[in-house]
Amino acid sequence: MEWNKSGNLTLLTDYYQISMMYAHFKNNLLDKKVVFDVFIRKNPCDSGYSLFAGLEQVINYIRNIKFSEEDINYISSIYPYDREFLDFLRGFRFTGDIWSVPEGTVIFPNEPIMKIETNLIEAHLIETAILNIINHQTLIATKAARIVFSADGDPVIDFGLRRAQGPDAGIYGSRAAYIGGVTGTSNVLAGKLFSIPVVGTHAHAYIQSYSSELEAFLAYAEIFPNNAILLVDTYDTLNSGIPNAIKTFKIMKEKYGDQFKNYGIRIDSGDLAYLSKQARKMLDEAGFSDAKIIASNDLDEYIIRDLKLQGAKINSWGVGTKLISSSGCSALGGVYKLAAEIKDGESIPKIKISENPEKVTTPGVKKLIRFYDKINFRAIVDLVMLHDEKIPVKNFIAFDPINVWKKKLVKNFIAKELLIPIFKNGELVYSPPALEEIRKRAKKELSTISEEIKRINNPHVYHVDLSQKLWDLKHELINKERNKHY
Amino acid sequence: MEWNKSGNLTLLTDYYQISMMYAHFKNNLLDKKVVFDVFIRKNPCDSGYSLFAGLEQVINYIRNIKFSEEDINYISSIYPYDREFLDFLRGFRFTGDIWSVPEGTVIFPNEPIMKIETNLIEAHLIETAILNIINHQTLIATKAARIVFSADGDPVIDFGLRRAQGPDAGIYGSRAAYIGGVTGTSNVLAGKLFSIPVVGTHAHAYIQSYSSELEAFLAYAEIFPNNAILLVDTYDTLNSGIPNAIKTFKIMKEKYGDQFKNYGIRIDSGDLAYLSKQARKMLDEAGFSDAKIIASNDLDEYIIRDLKLQGAKINSWGVGTKLISSSGCSALGGVYKLAAEIKDGESIPKIKISENPEKVTTPGVKKLIRFYDKINFRAIVDLVMLHDEKIPVKNFIAFDPINVWKKKLVKNFIAKELLIPIFKNGELVYSPPALEEIRKRAKKELSTISEEIKRINNPHVYHVDLSQKLWDLKHELINKERNKHY
Repeated sequence: MEWNKSGNLTLLTDYYQISMMYAHFKNNLLDKKVVFDVFIRKNPCDSGYSLFAGLEQVINYIRNIKFSEEDINYISSIYPYDREFLDFLRGFRFTGDIWSVPEGTVIFPNEPIMKIETNLIEAHLIETAILNIINHQTLIATKAARIVFSADGDPVIDFGLRRAQGPDAGIYGSRAAYIGGVTGTSNVLAGKLFSIPVVGTHAHAYIQSYSSELEAFLAYAEIFPNNAILLVDTYDTLNSGIPNAIKTFKIMKEKYGDQFKNYGIRIDSGDLAYLSKQARKMLDEAGFSDAKIIASNDLDEYIIRDLKLQGAKINSWGVGTKLISSSGCSALGGVYKLAAEIKDGESIPKIKISENPEKVTTPGVKKLIRFYDKINFRAIVDLVMLHDEKIPVKNFIAFDPINVWKKKLVKNFIAKELLIPIFKNGELVYSPPALEEIRKRAKKELSTISEEIKRINNPHVYHVDLSQKLWDLKHELINKERNKHY
Repeated sequence: MEWNKSGNLTLLTDYYQISMMYAHFKNNLLDKKVVFDVFIRKNPCDSGYSLFAGLEQVINYIRNIKFSEEDINYISSIYPYDREFLDFLRGFRFTGDIWSVPEGTVIFPNEPIMKIETNLIEAHLIETAILNIINHQTLIATKAARIVFSADGDPVIDFGLRRAQGPDAGIYGSRAAYIGGVTGTSNVLAGKLFSIPVVGTHAHAYIQSYSSELEAFLAYAEIFPNNAILLVDTYDTLNSGIPNAIKTFKIMKEKYGDQFKNYGIRIDSGDLAYLSKQARKMLDEAGFSDAKIIASNDLDEYIIRDLKLQGAKINSWGVGTKLISSSGCSALGGVYKLAAEIKDGESIPKIKISENPEKVTTPGVKKLIRFYDKINFRAIVDLVMLHDEKIPVKNFIAFDPINVWKKKLVKNFIAKELLIPIFKNGELVYSPPALEEIRKRAKKELSTISEEIKRINNPHVYHVDLSQKLWDLKHELINKERNKHY
């Protein structure tokens, strides 16, 4: 979208939203006010947490909503809608309120991460695009954070563009990955749009374009004497690539001395643990202990962790396919569910029952509070409360909403409300921070959750509890609905 | 991109392409002509085939390549490039030749599906965007074809937009899914851009906005008496949803007679096999044997196959997340590899050796021939040949390029060359067909491969062989390179 500032995504919606808008329009439900929650049901890739991203693009989308005449013509070609409805669409804009957690916030399943309060018709239209944007960027930010966690301080670079699910997946994927902690991207357009550092040296085809590997290396190093990362696996890593890289480094060092810097090799195939250890030895023996070793080739959080366990001598990690497409968990199932109706200023909580228990929604207009340990500022528990409940100020007992016997005494805490106002009566009341700020925030946020929650496999489950009042309301409504039929 | 006709994706490239372009520019390699092949190494999701898609967007991308002043400024902010190079970029456009298989073609691993012949610098720039577009759309078209195969004649509808990896993944994913055989999409913007039929009725929130389920159903059916697909799982499918749907159908039939048509129910949770069978019985007993049953909820080719095996009474399938994000195989690993250099009209074959045998490339300027059985027009074998070899006209023996003892007598065939010219000297020489034509072509193409190849699990492996001459050339080059070091 950024690469098309005038980009109008008004029709980026599911057709049933238009049908429902029409039904509500015809039934004179134009003024009905409702509250919808956005939440996830599960962290991606069995992660212990997720990292929220995409709000800035949601804001851009909301601000640009407008049905063009072309859009209206198209809609009227699908179904013979009344002229009144089409006129209504012509004047359509978003007039409601939106709250959200800021980008870079650590989030957990079953807590509201966005809240939309507006009339029913507007609420329908915007569901799909909000979910599309938030689901994608939160997915990739989370995947990136997991990979960066595995790399344990080493730089991770996003190399994924060519394997992304289309241009936007590459562009916004790079943005999300940067929020998640990668240090740079190969994606030039994402670099331009979001000021992400771009990196990259050369490909196998570059080496093959010269009559020998050594010639190719020398030519490259001459042109970029302060960024000569040489790709060593075009012909034979140990017998050709590394020896030729060492020859190149010698010639360059002799010629340029300390001006020749920030150099090294990249290995893109073979066993990265074995090859990197051999490479390190060869480079060190030749006196190039400051030469970097960069690895790429189908890396992800699991492989990086295993390579590090085996003592791989890799300084930085180029991660492509599995980061940008979030391999193993290709979609985040964020949903947008009706929580309440507002009538004469009063809220009427709404619930959706389901044969699948995890699909039963939590009713009511809510707020989300995170409690941190006063001493070490670690997150202890999240509490979903009704919007007019008082936030606890001293010790209280939180309990698991499913296994209610699981209780936890929460004490010595600082409480923080996570949902903040973004739009008020259709006006933006929030200044989206720069991407660099969001990335810093994410880093700080990740420091507030324990290592056990960040563990790659089988992480500790963070507590997201309901207030007693909300729990009671939910179960009252479930029983009421179910009792209708028994 | 389509939703932004002026969309300039020139910077949608990896930064190393710019570095390499600069290195070649500085080394006066501007006129060096090269040939690159695009191919896949593996079908996605262990499929027996892939379905090629995305060419039209590649064409749009190539035609719009142009570095804006803003782009040039950005590039010169990354590195102090020579002014000559920046001037060169200002005048840059694609001047070469591109061949491709048409969209909707069934393709297999290790055969050239696109071929680019141009100078080295242009060839580098365009690699990333070509792969991004082709990898994405081919992935989703293939996933869709697999799902449609499992649905065995039932309509499949794309419901994935909200779970797609960003706006483009939804938009071009819908396009690719339509090529793969889905009958419609919920994505309004994709419908507008590509004339894909859009479908959809209402969501749970619609039902919840009325004081009762029955009231909501009746209101909806009154407004859309010829498209009343009622969502029955908001409260209780068997005890509330279906009985209320039946009441609605009775009232509507009485009121509208045969004008009330194209009606039915949608089930979005619970056990779809059990619920659909119960629903069918209840609907039939009430006299609504023409009421349709549509199912959705995390479907894919495996679940649809299993539900059908268990006799689920489902007439059409709404497939979302797992189609649009290609769950289980979130990226297609298509690559773009140097095959030859052209010098004074002669081609010099180029190879890339790798520690990973599957990463060794096939050198030379090539063509791709598919041999069909003359009688039933089934595809027998694909043969990758050097471009100047004669295509066999009578019986010949094909052999597997890895297990060379695996031979096959090919007889009574019709041979077809699959790569066709798209650009010639930078000019488009191809008229991209309408999407509807591409979809028809895909259907026909899929009919030329056997059921065994289309099997969802463990499919038969289709033969992609090299001509003897090409095989010899490849092994000669491998030995030559490897012998340098032993």
